[in-house]
Amino acid sequence: MDDLHVVILAGGSGTRFWPASRARRPKQFLPLGEGGVSLLQATIDRCRGLVPDERIWIVTNPMQAGLLDQATEGLRRDRVLIEQEARDTAPCVALAAARIGARAPGAVLAVLPADHRIAPPAAFVELLRRGAELAADRQTLVTFGIRPTRPATGFGYIEIGEPLDARSPAAHRVLRFREKPDLATARQFVASGRCLWNSGIFVWSREALLAAMAVGDPQLLAATQRMLEAARAGDEPALAQAFLQAPRKSIDYAIMEKAPRVAVVRADLQWDDLGSFPSLAAVFPPDAAGNVQSLSGGGKAMLQDSKNCIVHAEGRRLVALLGAEDLVVVAVDDAVLVCPKARAEDLKAVIQALRERGDGEFL
Amino acid sequence: MDDLHVVILAGGSGTRFWPASRARRPKQFLPLGEGGVSLLQATIDRCRGLVPDERIWIVTNPMQAGLLDQATEGLRRDRVLIEQEARDTAPCVALAAARIGARAPGAVLAVLPADHRIAPPAAFVELLRRGAELAADRQTLVTFGIRPTRPATGFGYIEIGEPLDARSPAAHRVLRFREKPDLATARQFVASGRCLWNSGIFVWSREALLAAMAVGDPQLLAATQRMLEAARAGDEPALAQAFLQAPRKSIDYAIMEKAPRVAVVRADLQWDDLGSFPSLAAVFPPDAAGNVQSLSGGGKAMLQDSKNCIVHAEGRRLVALLGAEDLVVVAVDDAVLVCPKARAEDLKAVIQALRERGDGEFL
Repeated sequence: MDDLHVVILAGGSGTRFWPASRARRPKQFLPLGEGGVSLLQATIDRCRGLVPDERIWIVTNPMQAGLLDQATEGLRRDRVLIEQEARDTAPCVALAAARIGARAPGAVLAVLPADHRIAPPAAFVELLRRGAELAADRQTLVTFGIRPTRPATGFGYIEIGEPLDARSPAAHRVLRFREKPDLATARQFVASGRCLWNSGIFVWSREALLAAMAVGDPQLLAATQRMLEAARAGDEPALAQAFLQAPRKSIDYAIMEKAPRVAVVRADLQWDDLGSFPSLAAVFPPDAAGNVQSLSGGGKAMLQDSKNCIVHAEGRRLVALLGAEDLVVVAVDDAVLVCPKARAEDLKAVIQALRERGDGEFL
Repeated sequence: MDDLHVVILAGGSGTRFWPASRARRPKQFLPLGEGGVSLLQATIDRCRGLVPDERIWIVTNPMQAGLLDQATEGLRRDRVLIEQEARDTAPCVALAAARIGARAPGAVLAVLPADHRIAPPAAFVELLRRGAELAADRQTLVTFGIRPTRPATGFGYIEIGEPLDARSPAAHRVLRFREKPDLATARQFVASGRCLWNSGIFVWSREALLAAMAVGDPQLLAATQRMLEAARAGDEPALAQAFLQAPRKSIDYAIMEKAPRVAVVRADLQWDDLGSFPSLAAVFPPDAAGNVQSLSGGGKAMLQDSKNCIVHAEGRRLVALLGAEDLVVVAVDDAVLVCPKARAEDLKAVIQALRERGDGEFL
């Protein structure tokens, strides 16, 4: 498809992998991709199977733009779009739609996060091709749903309706989007067989996107159109200003949940959004004692009489556990984190406390 | 007392504070003394209240001799005695007795470990003066016993007999030395009121020491006499050879337990031999949640919802605990240790496993 462009959203702050992830090195820069590359690098490499380099766009923030150099080697510098400030995903999608629309009015956009773990790459490419075909009707917003393998409470769900048509058994209408559920609800979702994990990956034509904005969020549409005009005119200050007028929302919330024609394609992929340290078990298979080791840059671990622990070590250092159980232990150059696995989702409390104490250097 | 010399035994390997302590930086070099100085430095400073610098001797091994420079600033280099190899304390005491004896045949020696925590210094000085007076009779071996404050199983005990004489209510004959007891026995010891912790500090005249060797370990006496002759003749190779002929024993075992005339002086001191990380509570008072923080060189801690933990951090790094309980967490430049407090005495298992795996660089 000559009009398919990929937009990688790479501006996340990634506090959930603190202290491995930092304001200046968010999760997508952690070496959690296949072969020890960063998640961003793995995401770019995956997309290279789908479109040529000149149709890969990255939206990030000024702080991280400097970090991109290595991961984005070979990409054109003008494909890196800078968000003026963190305003959630809707303004970023609008920015990409405007920049790409100024060059390719008939573009179809595949929008995806930089920090997910997806395998195998070939299945991902095949899936997005299929999504792009569906989106080619210029009316349908296409999402991708992952068949749940457990009652996860950390993901949003998509409740599926009837099949889109007889020719596409894997594509369904979306009945509704469901927020991250509690455990009981998650169990119902999984048991129902009608709910999929929301992968956060979308494909839509620019036309369908603008139409959905008109229905779901006219303010977002207005900002997008101003950005488009500014991009066409090469008026960078106007573009920056218009970006700041886009409402601070996620794209899911701004348009997807209200759009009339949304399809979900069932994705038979290994997928994980790696939302917290325990999810590293999806990347680094646990050993016989249930321990997960995420080691890079010379990091080593010695696990003595220990079980069901997660160890993440970077740089030439050793993490030794003796008699430890169900712990997360993270060691990087200037910081160490130790917490029970059950508390691994609560890292914001630590980050907040550090900020209040004036220890911002560790954030 | 013009003939009192202090001998500081500073050759310990200190695996019990791994990874803070290493083969090349044993426990006595850790910043666990008052005011953040090393234990060795604190020991030397304490002894400076007792004798002038030229009568302070340090016995150490070749590897650590280089580390001494800072701690021993102001001491004469020829007061540092090198043990050829680690052979426990008896050969070290013999070496010191020979070297000092060559200069001062009538010396009284105070022998003490480099890595204990003792306060206040003035009480220590007063105590050793009293011990030196008792030892001045040239017959009595003097030890010091600490009134036990808990049924510790990590210390040896001294069972006391009748008072030495009416003038010295704090000095008793030693009935017997007791090995590190199990908990039930330790409780009996404490309840009896007749047992003191063996402080590992001794005072004796060179004459009484040699006499005790003649009774307890003639082989040790022979090696000591050969070392003395070599020291008098300035024959370093002969001295080194004689050192290697001294039996590989502790001085307690070699002579104290068999000597006919041993006195113990009751020491009203704060004393701890800092045998493992939980003993850091004696150095750094626990906070309201029972957490102990041993931080140096810019180390920081953030303890969130955590209790009864021991944190030791060195260098510009942060240790963050979230929801942790009863853990020991140690972070130094190249290594991190996490273990339950209850396992803190079992570090040898980790060290052994690292050695077997070829990770000697971390030992």
